[in-house]
Amino acid sequence: MINTLQENVSIILPENGLEEKLKQAKEENRKLSIKLGFDPTAPDLHLGHAVVLKKLKQFQDLGHQVIIVVGSFTARIGDPTGKNKARKPLSTEDVQHNALTYINQLSKIIDVEKTKIVFNSDWLDPLNLSEVIQLLSKVTVAQLMHRNDFNKRFTENTPIAMHELVYPILQGFDSIKIECDIEMGGTDQLFNCTMGRQLQEVHQMPAQIVMCMPLLKGLDGKEKMSKSLNNIIGLTDEPNEMFGKTMSIPDALIDEFIDLTTDFSMEEKESLKSKIENGENPMNIKKLVAKNIIRQYHNEEAAENAELFFNNQFQNKNFEEKNFDPVSISTLNHVQHKTTILELCHQLIKDLSKSAVRRLIESGGVQINSVKIINPDEEIVLTKEVKIKIGRRSFFELV
Amino acid sequence: MINTLQENVSIILPENGLEEKLKQAKEENRKLSIKLGFDPTAPDLHLGHAVVLKKLKQFQDLGHQVIIVVGSFTARIGDPTGKNKARKPLSTEDVQHNALTYINQLSKIIDVEKTKIVFNSDWLDPLNLSEVIQLLSKVTVAQLMHRNDFNKRFTENTPIAMHELVYPILQGFDSIKIECDIEMGGTDQLFNCTMGRQLQEVHQMPAQIVMCMPLLKGLDGKEKMSKSLNNIIGLTDEPNEMFGKTMSIPDALIDEFIDLTTDFSMEEKESLKSKIENGENPMNIKKLVAKNIIRQYHNEEAAENAELFFNNQFQNKNFEEKNFDPVSISTLNHVQHKTTILELCHQLIKDLSKSAVRRLIESGGVQINSVKIINPDEEIVLTKEVKIKIGRRSFFELV
Repeated sequence: MINTLQENVSIILPENGLEEKLKQAKEENRKLSIKLGFDPTAPDLHLGHAVVLKKLKQFQDLGHQVIIVVGSFTARIGDPTGKNKARKPLSTEDVQHNALTYINQLSKIIDVEKTKIVFNSDWLDPLNLSEVIQLLSKVTVAQLMHRNDFNKRFTENTPIAMHELVYPILQGFDSIKIECDIEMGGTDQLFNCTMGRQLQEVHQMPAQIVMCMPLLKGLDGKEKMSKSLNNIIGLTDEPNEMFGKTMSIPDALIDEFIDLTTDFSMEEKESLKSKIENGENPMNIKKLVAKNIIRQYHNEEAAENAELFFNNQFQNKNFEEKNFDPVSISTLNHVQHKTTILELCHQLIKDLSKSAVRRLIESGGVQINSVKIINPDEEIVLTKEVKIKIGRRSFFELV
Repeated sequence: MINTLQENVSIILPENGLEEKLKQAKEENRKLSIKLGFDPTAPDLHLGHAVVLKKLKQFQDLGHQVIIVVGSFTARIGDPTGKNKARKPLSTEDVQHNALTYINQLSKIIDVEKTKIVFNSDWLDPLNLSEVIQLLSKVTVAQLMHRNDFNKRFTENTPIAMHELVYPILQGFDSIKIECDIEMGGTDQLFNCTMGRQLQEVHQMPAQIVMCMPLLKGLDGKEKMSKSLNNIIGLTDEPNEMFGKTMSIPDALIDEFIDLTTDFSMEEKESLKSKIENGENPMNIKKLVAKNIIRQYHNEEAAENAELFFNNQFQNKNFEEKNFDPVSISTLNHVQHKTTILELCHQLIKDLSKSAVRRLIESGGVQINSVKIINPDEEIVLTKEVKIKIGRRSFFELV
């Protein structure tokens, strides 16, 4: 069990903490509270979020209590410096709406019925200055300046507004309030989650375990998957979109996608990866990954259809690039202007029997104007510029 | 007028701000609000505080509104890190009590009737987290780290708790709340007062003028006058204590004391300073300064008495160190054991006429056991070990 829970995890803090926490919970016969923070300004979930959510699901399947902390307090403040127009304050209704959208998407991965959803404005709104000062006094400036991005901005003289330094402390306060046992997040949340450990200790509570999942790279293969970078596969994307986007990732990203986005078993994952090493065309592996993803967020049929659709699209592209042998309509042996696909193909490829052509068509070997036609008896009007592909190597254009 | 207001001031920010503010007030026919913050954990005022208070008095005399902001909010929080035991939280009653003590001392310098006393907990207590965040967002970390002490501690890795960074911002918020025109303080308050300017501007108010007075050095002549350094002359010190302490300052401090602690006119001050330059015994100048100080915080008579007391003490010290000529009581020409001071002295100094001795006594030239006796007819019982000083050079001891 512990192996599964640790699969794909980048950082567990402290190192043996998870094992001990689980043991403790078992001895005390209690559920662990597993926290994930959610920013209600960005309710569109993608495969990057799914990496963390699937880990939550594992805990949920073991009977533990997943708690989603909606950052309603900060969302309602927005960017008080007014510099970041994207972060304008949300109304309570906006927050509620976004949270619902989010929960709806969550249900694709975790059991929402068993999940506790809490809003941090419930305990942050009533905090008064005196309580804020007490909280701030537990943390030093130097600690906060150790956070990578703060440190970088400080040394580069990029302004850091004071309230930004306060947000990680508030996130830690959330952990106190929900009595969090394990806080989950991406590796970029390590610092903020550690703040929770520190504040819980000051408040004489057991410090939470921090579990950071790797940040899935986006379609560009460079930056982390993020809506603002327009490099995401959304959990609610249509199957064809999911397929096409997955096919578009750089080959170097395939291993990461196998590990973090599929629900293949460990053995299947290793087998796929070794196939690539042994020279298998990466495109074939990507197709398997793409179908696996669609199977998770839609269903088997959608996965199959998406592959077909993609293949059509893909071959379509090849189709247009070929050299077509011109065939004059007048040379074709027809009294009428209209004929069947079978007749047309049979006349173009004279060295195949009619039944062989029929089988070829039925097996998807014929395309008219880049559309696969699998009914040999479908009729076709013979007009100029119609393009016909028969089998792998024969390309004709009516003139 | 502007010259008097600028006398002794170390820093005015912006440079011509005071002049303009005064002009403005005159044009708009309104009083300026002059702010001074007061820390109610330290209600014992000393001559260092008086430097600022006297400047306030000048504004008050011109008809402006002095506002004392009692830092009741922070005093009631104490030191939330718990490290500084001296800064334990004060109750509301403690704060009220200390404020009363303070106001009582204030009345030695400013007109308390015309002074507005406000408590910053009135507007800081009700602040909620959201309002705090809004406030903090107006200030950057880098700005705060420019404050000398923060900068020093940060580079030396001495912990700075986050709430410490917040206090200057709260002080600035006070200025917004009281619509401050001029904030007064010691030079060590420059940074905090400047914070007020910035926050007022963000709140679309005219920025306050900052006026910083020099920090008076303490009796040690090294550190600034501060109760915790035990180097103060308190405003409520007894006259003799004030005199003695003033006499104890290093000579190098006399000019500073003339400037900052006396109420001599500019001309008198310059004259005293040039006397020292021209070789006058510094002790004589210190006596003038000491008497001037006592005159301000007590009265003329107390000043004179303190000088006499000091002279006695001082000469007493010399007195004890002298060699006394032993005079056997039996050799003195008395039938009775008791005589007058005049008789006794006349018998001891035979070459002075009785009337000359009388004049000598009346002018303070005779001491018995280190006490100056100025009534020639006072009676004295002749006993062993009585010591008599007559004039400058004659010392006798009865044996």
